[in-house]
Amino acid sequence: MADAQPFRRLCLVGIGLIASSIARAAREHGLAETIVCASPDPAHRAEALALGLADEAFASNAEAVRGADLVILCTPVGVMGAVAREISGDLDEGAILSDVGSVKQGVIDAVAPHLPDHVRFVPAHPIAGTENSGPAAGFASLFRGRWLVITPNGLSDDQSVARLTAFWTAMGAEVEVMDAGHHDQVLAITSHIPHLIAYNIVGTADDLETVTKSEVIKFSAAGFRDFTRIAASDPTMWRDVFLNNREAVLEMLARFSEDLTALQRAIRWGDGETLFQLFTRTRAIRRAIIDAGQDSAAPNFGRDVDGAGDD
Amino acid sequence: MADAQPFRRLCLVGIGLIASSIARAAREHGLAETIVCASPDPAHRAEALALGLADEAFASNAEAVRGADLVILCTPVGVMGAVAREISGDLDEGAILSDVGSVKQGVIDAVAPHLPDHVRFVPAHPIAGTENSGPAAGFASLFRGRWLVITPNGLSDDQSVARLTAFWTAMGAEVEVMDAGHHDQVLAITSHIPHLIAYNIVGTADDLETVTKSEVIKFSAAGFRDFTRIAASDPTMWRDVFLNNREAVLEMLARFSEDLTALQRAIRWGDGETLFQLFTRTRAIRRAIIDAGQDSAAPNFGRDVDGAGDD
Repeated sequence: MADAQPFRRLCLVGIGLIASSIARAAREHGLAETIVCASPDPAHRAEALALGLADEAFASNAEAVRGADLVILCTPVGVMGAVAREISGDLDEGAILSDVGSVKQGVIDAVAPHLPDHVRFVPAHPIAGTENSGPAAGFASLFRGRWLVITPNGLSDDQSVARLTAFWTAMGAEVEVMDAGHHDQVLAITSHIPHLIAYNIVGTADDLETVTKSEVIKFSAAGFRDFTRIAASDPTMWRDVFLNNREAVLEMLARFSEDLTALQRAIRWGDGETLFQLFTRTRAIRRAIIDAGQDSAAPNFGRDVDGAGDD
Repeated sequence: MADAQPFRRLCLVGIGLIASSIARAAREHGLAETIVCASPDPAHRAEALALGLADEAFASNAEAVRGADLVILCTPVGVMGAVAREISGDLDEGAILSDVGSVKQGVIDAVAPHLPDHVRFVPAHPIAGTENSGPAAGFASLFRGRWLVITPNGLSDDQSVARLTAFWTAMGAEVEVMDAGHHDQVLAITSHIPHLIAYNIVGTADDLETVTKSEVIKFSAAGFRDFTRIAASDPTMWRDVFLNNREAVLEMLARFSEDLTALQRAIRWGDGETLFQLFTRTRAIRRAIIDAGQDSAAPNFGRDVDGAGDD
């Protein structure tokens, strides 16, 4: 749709699920003349070259960013500050620096202080992903129909926001501009808390003595298996999310726990009406998500209408 | 596989997702000469006849069970005791009475006292389902590759357990025999607690003031949407599950909350190591569930590799 002006040289710092999906989509849509990447892991660099994701792969972040007019930080958010310090002296005059971190205010606080005046910083977050990690896990359609949130700040300008918007729009994303702090609150409830409680229940189940691990696995189709998918997400990425969005996560978690205590009390005292009312209200939200095109309406996400997850 | 001896007359009390799937599968595999159902809802009775699920549909449970050699209670567990009282005088000599309730000890306690001596009671629970409800939601392959737990008790005998096992095996299920109390503990962690926390987080999100409902819906692909699927399950069924498996649910919930408090503390104090260790451990469980054939290995359950949940 958008007639995005191609970038001359796109540099992806990190080459995991998101970066490799950007590389594939940017190639598919002709959004960059040259794509380079940086990774400390020789196996990932070799994979990126073998898969044709990047024309050049660097061990050094500073070397990688030289000459790039778009640099996207695709590392866990916990190291973005250190990366910014590393590359600040090598960023081209007029380059746009962006990122894909799941936390925005923490990234701005960590990155901005290191940047020279001649660079535009446009933080962004694609609301897309899977439970898989690594260069081979990406695919070009990952962002299609998904949201991309841009959180401009003192180091962005209208032109750089517009160029990044065109870049993501061309890859199929829908772009929303938002305040960084608000982004972090929205994502705390739509993403960070769901991941935390999924990790938590899988851990709780793993620790039980009265129910064996093999029973948990065997009977997981009763609901538990949905949680294990989320709890299979990248550990480093998620550790950094929780450490860098602490305030919003703790606030939402307090509300979640308060509400759960009320349900616990309803169960203990046999208050069926409270349970029934909540369980009825939550159905409407599911309907709205399907109507908004943000999930499949197929039963069980369509994964096993035809049998036993053996697809 | 099993050469299941067909039942002469199968009576399904209730005709929702599970009962209608049994009807379809039993027809497909020739497991009953006649199938009848009972439902207090005239629309459901009409639908059951129109869809060919049942040869006859009754408003009265007592009338429905007459002459049946297999009666399966497919109502919410909360009314199974009352249904048993209603039908006890009309059950055929030698009939097998079973059920599909998600709670087993509570059902045994509620049903057994009403049963005459000439009836065999074989409680069972198919670990299968979707978030949809009603006669039209069922499908014949729902039980294929899924587990069916039988919890024999003083009113079962080897022959009735064997016949019910053959019936479910013919529909594609794998049968496991278990003590009722143990079943209730296993299901508390693999099913009841996951449903409770899914309902809970969807409710928490719905109540927020700082994040709007439309934002929650828009950005749900970040993880939240997985929970909304579970939280769209039948409210009456789930209210009854929690009220009838109170002890096991409260015990597992206490452990879950304790573990969550430890994670909360790790986030507050920046203890990344605790987070990283849990997040690494939980990945292995996901792998084991996929290896056991209990879930799809496709990213995002395979629902949107090709785009935006618009499938």
